[in-house]
Amino acid sequence: MKHTISVLVENKFGVLARVAGLFSARGYNISSLAVSETLDPQISCMTIVVQAEDEKILEQIEKQLNKLIDVISVTDFTKKEHVERELVLVKINYLSKQKAQLDKFLKKFLAKVVHGKENTAIIEAVGEQEQIRQLLEGLAKFGVHELVRTGKIAMA
Amino acid sequence: MKHTISVLVENKFGVLARVAGLFSARGYNISSLAVSETLDPQISCMTIVVQAEDEKILEQIEKQLNKLIDVISVTDFTKKEHVERELVLVKINYLSKQKAQLDKFLKKFLAKVVHGKENTAIIEAVGEQEQIRQLLEGLAKFGVHELVRTGKIAMA
Repeated sequence: MKHTISVLVENKFGVLARVAGLFSARGYNISSLAVSETLDPQISCMTIVVQAEDEKILEQIEKQLNKLIDVISVTDFTKKEHVERELVLVKINYLSKQKAQLDKFLKKFLAKVVHGKENTAIIEAVGEQEQIRQLLEGLAKFGVHELVRTGKIAMA
Repeated sequence: MKHTISVLVENKFGVLARVAGLFSARGYNISSLAVSETLDPQISCMTIVVQAEDEKILEQIEKQLNKLIDVISVTDFTKKEHVERELVLVKINYLSKQKAQLDKFLKKFLAKVVHGKENTAIIEAVGEQEQIRQLLEGLAKFGVHELVRTGKIAMA
């Protein structure tokens, strides 16, 4: 089961490596990670998505996170009502005759072209995981050239 | 000067901690970090924003990154034409009489309310760093309660 975990940490160097290290030491691969400042520039928020093969090990990791001196709080959104979003940038190459079809498709997903040149476009889209999956699946037929994603963020 | 660096890495556990460790070992704090899968699920993309006090040290870090066995490529977007975007979720508490003013403000930034209940709203917005800064500055007068950001992603 995929878990989305938010960790508030002191914004100091080394903290990120220590938190990431806790997961890798247990053989847990992080699917996605978003780290940025919060309202308080002294505090950073890490949003971590992990595939938990064993819920007990994840509980142990959460306990260990809480014990780290620079960790302020740990929230597992899996058990909480929350909003989640991810941002993607997708570079596609399309045929001229596909333009109308592409525009219609992007409108459906509220996605937009942020840079376009000849038959190449950079598309920006925001959504929940399932929406992004459908978007990428649909864009595949136009020819996806490059993809950058932010990883998920969440708010209770 | 702030640098936005994109690092393509093999999607294995431990890589993230190693890359983050390279920066912290040099006393470089990562301002934001976004890690996610690419088109190839075996490869992850890390978008790292760092404040470089000394450009020479940053060059050394980039060289060291390139030497890591799981690093495929390193791109510093500072010297390249690129598109950059960040996603934020902001929870605000506003007064009923501020509703019209809030709607007008959000429209200007193409931001939208993704969850609303009484006088609390979760707002989703995407933009370049300067736009996000202006948005947050403007929202401050409504009473910002919570903020989660993805960190920047970039595409050449």
